[in-house]
Amino acid sequence: MSDTRSPGITETVARFACGRSHPTEDRVAAATRSLVDVVGVALAGRETPAFRAVSRWADSEPTTGTSVVWGAGIRRGAAQAALLNGTAGHALDFDDACPSMPLHPSTVLWPALLAVVRDDGTEPDPTSVSQALDVGNAVLRAIGEALPMATHYERGWHSTSTVGRLAAVAALARLRGLDMTTTRHALGVVASMAAGSLANFGTATKPLHAGLAARDAVVAVSLAEHGLDAAPDQLEHRSGFLALFGAPDRTAGERLGERLEHWERDWPHDWSLKRYPSCYGTHRSLDAVLELREEIDPAEVESVEVWAGRRSLRPLLRRLPTSGLEAKFSLHYTVATTLLRGAPGITDFTDAALADPTVRDLMRRVHVHGEDTPPDRPDLAGQPYALVRVRLTGGATAQRLVLHTRGDARNPLTDAEIDDKFRAAAGAGGYAKDATETLLALLRRALVEPGALAGALAALRDNDSRSERHSSE
Amino acid sequence: MSDTRSPGITETVARFACGRSHPTEDRVAAATRSLVDVVGVALAGRETPAFRAVSRWADSEPTTGTSVVWGAGIRRGAAQAALLNGTAGHALDFDDACPSMPLHPSTVLWPALLAVVRDDGTEPDPTSVSQALDVGNAVLRAIGEALPMATHYERGWHSTSTVGRLAAVAALARLRGLDMTTTRHALGVVASMAAGSLANFGTATKPLHAGLAARDAVVAVSLAEHGLDAAPDQLEHRSGFLALFGAPDRTAGERLGERLEHWERDWPHDWSLKRYPSCYGTHRSLDAVLELREEIDPAEVESVEVWAGRRSLRPLLRRLPTSGLEAKFSLHYTVATTLLRGAPGITDFTDAALADPTVRDLMRRVHVHGEDTPPDRPDLAGQPYALVRVRLTGGATAQRLVLHTRGDARNPLTDAEIDDKFRAAAGAGGYAKDATETLLALLRRALVEPGALAGALAALRDNDSRSERHSSE
Repeated sequence: MSDTRSPGITETVARFACGRSHPTEDRVAAATRSLVDVVGVALAGRETPAFRAVSRWADSEPTTGTSVVWGAGIRRGAAQAALLNGTAGHALDFDDACPSMPLHPSTVLWPALLAVVRDDGTEPDPTSVSQALDVGNAVLRAIGEALPMATHYERGWHSTSTVGRLAAVAALARLRGLDMTTTRHALGVVASMAAGSLANFGTATKPLHAGLAARDAVVAVSLAEHGLDAAPDQLEHRSGFLALFGAPDRTAGERLGERLEHWERDWPHDWSLKRYPSCYGTHRSLDAVLELREEIDPAEVESVEVWAGRRSLRPLLRRLPTSGLEAKFSLHYTVATTLLRGAPGITDFTDAALADPTVRDLMRRVHVHGEDTPPDRPDLAGQPYALVRVRLTGGATAQRLVLHTRGDARNPLTDAEIDDKFRAAAGAGGYAKDATETLLALLRRALVEPGALAGALAALRDNDSRSERHSSE
Repeated sequence: MSDTRSPGITETVARFACGRSHPTEDRVAAATRSLVDVVGVALAGRETPAFRAVSRWADSEPTTGTSVVWGAGIRRGAAQAALLNGTAGHALDFDDACPSMPLHPSTVLWPALLAVVRDDGTEPDPTSVSQALDVGNAVLRAIGEALPMATHYERGWHSTSTVGRLAAVAALARLRGLDMTTTRHALGVVASMAAGSLANFGTATKPLHAGLAARDAVVAVSLAEHGLDAAPDQLEHRSGFLALFGAPDRTAGERLGERLEHWERDWPHDWSLKRYPSCYGTHRSLDAVLELREEIDPAEVESVEVWAGRRSLRPLLRRLPTSGLEAKFSLHYTVATTLLRGAPGITDFTDAALADPTVRDLMRRVHVHGEDTPPDRPDLAGQPYALVRVRLTGGATAQRLVLHTRGDARNPLTDAEIDDKFRAAAGAGGYAKDATETLLALLRRALVEPGALAGALAALRDNDSRSERHSSE
């Protein structure tokens, strides 16, 4: 039956997931930052139309269980909690990403992992949780390489949702201490659930993809634990995951073990936090604008020229945006609003913010140029970049070139900036200041101090943490 | 954003789903037979390891709702009930199929439709239910043609699960009277859930595929009703359903409206009930064996030669089976047991039945020949067939050629045979005789008599219907 082109891929992933490792201090620190970041953006994501629709559906068919729905004051079954939290985490497109490939790790991995952690003090030890996250991040990137990702994404698959399911199953297998056989079955089951079409980008179904990926990982692991079997060679089977979703070459399987070990060690170096709640393709330009803003008066700007590589411009709108959601994919809007108001936050992507006549006026004077080589910098040909040049009313110009965006591992956000992002996001999600600080402190200790993770989950379940203006929802 | 190669496909499907039609008497009769058949095989399917594993998982995260889990004595949320009933319906591989393409319609459509019908007398009128099934059957076959199915299946997609999701959404849209916009969003949402790998055939994950398809259709419709949007041109988008799952030609969209109308009218002519709980590829041979059995003494059989087209042999095992599940995919076993014991039933596919030394002895004397032209019949080249030739100990031979298997629309089972299949299946599912007859009578009237469908669901919920030996489960 099975025409195994790369024997042992499923076994290699399962063996890696069932293995042992010792998280280093820098990996624990990165995992902590990713936890703080995704919980924050998920709290803010609760206030989106996408999340509200999914939440209303879940209320129509509630599940019984002990998993915390973040910031909702309720507990639900693990699968439904994972779905809700994963959707909330991706709803603002403000969650973290791998720069090397289009994948959002934390909004799938953390909702899946935390769905099986109880808020009553019986949670696993912090080291196990950190290890499980490392496993998920490694599988995410190694399978992304094996597919390979460029083909996968170009065909139209939403990688966060497809590869994310496998990664979250591997992470859960480690956290729950599954044996090899159960892990192989869980990987096989989730392969038959992997889905997500890029055609739904720009709609509320996009964040749902992340929620479904987290949910399916939880369900597949639980089904395998309850005795459901699947093809033990699913991933490498001629009708299996790699064949259906990519175009793997014959050496993918041979390299996989090495790549898993590499990425387990090195994922923090291929991991980027978003500083702005807009499409990643806008970020380098916004970094440049923020630097320019320190030396010029926005009122004196006559026109703005933006150059960037064509690949980073691909997901962006070419026309002017017509809604707050579209504004996230508009260089014209994000550059204009950043020049006028500073670093954009969650509240800058509403229909009202977009309607501001001052911004609209400046947007019309922003010009975007897709060039794979920055002007006058042939040495940088093919490298991702953004160059922003501002012409002032007096005729003078100023410009900035950005190669590594703020948030990238080579130019990371500081812990203070991450905490500020958390505070703003929790506030947008209706959290009161005191409750926000308590929660932040618990999350910061969650992966090193026994009991802190359960405390954070209990705090996330405590509905009183949310301020009055939201408590009537 | 959208590179629409075949404009309007999503709109065409949505318009068809939201339209009006008048089911004819023969379509209502076919729908009734399909309902009786799938409920029966689902009741028997509850007693499989695959269903038991899925059921244990569902018990670990129960949902609140009013949908009946068939034969379980409980109600659950619509999505979970659809998942459980769809999985049960496919667990024995004994449910109905389209002969023109590898699709199982009823085990997805009926669990999805019945999940939104309550057992309290508030169900929709019987005509609406019958119409909705027609819509689902039409979309199933028309999208199967558009993909086209041969490419889709050859790539490794389980069509029942992928195309089944779209078909069930269309059926639910009709039943619930959705408007065009909501229907388009529901189709778009479910396209991002479509999944199912053929690599998991032969494992317990295969029947789960049908359950997941039914569940996702229910969820996608409910999400769209609660306000979730998706790409309105999802199916024809360059990263949409048809591009991801097939290789549609440019005329697929132009023909789609006509094909939907054709299949709504004609689905009963492309629909086949299974007489035996074994792989469809064995059925023509078993029909032939049953005819031969009327004229020969099985004890005198020296050897059996079976000829069949190579395509129908493809899903079958070449080696001797080692388990009751594998026995369903073995011509050696099914031919031998049918010769010795008559038409195989559910109880003939256990490990114990396979261990019978008399059967094992005869299996070794069964020889299978894949030939696309039957011996001495060049006029039948390329047509599906099975020819079974028996050599008796005295040297005499007898043979039978079968072109249309019993159960095919050109050689249909009688209502009495369908009722007997239902009785045997309900018995295997633990139903007592009286309860079985009550349920059967209600299902037979369900699509013509107001209240009968609700009555059937109430009977399916009534746990006392199951006899003592099963009530302790």
